[in-house]
Amino acid sequence: MASIFTKIIDGAIPAYVIAEDDKHLAFLDAMPLVKGHCLVIPKQETDFIFDLEQDEFKELWSFAQSVAKKMEKAYPDRRIAVAVVGLEVAHAHIHLIPIHKMEDMNFKNERLKFSDSEYLEIQKQIINS
Amino acid sequence: MASIFTKIIDGAIPAYVIAEDDKHLAFLDAMPLVKGHCLVIPKQETDFIFDLEQDEFKELWSFAQSVAKKMEKAYPDRRIAVAVVGLEVAHAHIHLIPIHKMEDMNFKNERLKFSDSEYLEIQKQIINS
Repeated sequence: MASIFTKIIDGAIPAYVIAEDDKHLAFLDAMPLVKGHCLVIPKQETDFIFDLEQDEFKELWSFAQSVAKKMEKAYPDRRIAVAVVGLEVAHAHIHLIPIHKMEDMNFKNERLKFSDSEYLEIQKQIINS
Repeated sequence: MASIFTKIIDGAIPAYVIAEDDKHLAFLDAMPLVKGHCLVIPKQETDFIFDLEQDEFKELWSFAQSVAKKMEKAYPDRRIAVAVVGLEVAHAHIHLIPIHKMEDMNFKNERLKFSDSEYLEIQKQIINS
């Protein structure tokens, strides 16, 4: 069965896309820990990130770096933290999380929920940075 | 002033080294969240990971992948989680954390402390995997 992320790639599930190329996609986490929390994925379905071929792995991180640099501009007072957990969705993904403090990246925290217009605003802010 | 990690690179502070090449170093975290918690750093002092040049950034992650693959073999019942926080030591570093569950990578958890012989055993287990 296609992973939820493959459904996003295929357009079967909508997402607020931040960046995309032929092999990678970055979009807003639908259950963000903080405002601007993004996910970066390879389009090819791979269970866990370290299973990617070396070149694919490097290109995925390079793509994530370009997204993080946009996020740094959008949120100049925050650090862009990185997390890969590998226990949730079985499709490799990188969390990019704009944090003020360590506690902001605690995955036990309650997730935020924004309205569509708020998500669109966040998306615009990052894309245009 | 040299960062604590530069002191480790220079040998002024001892560490249990897991892997090394001319540009990167991996060693056991002296304040591990779980057994086998490793840090991966570029030898060149750079405050934050996204400030690395694209090629340096990719090579650092590629080195981290090779370390993570050893850790996967050493701890086959765990996932190797990834975290970059960027709020602690001002020298870019990647945490590689062998986790059973999400909570294992909560940075608020109390840190473990092992004896020298235990650290040596952990080091040996990862290196020889």
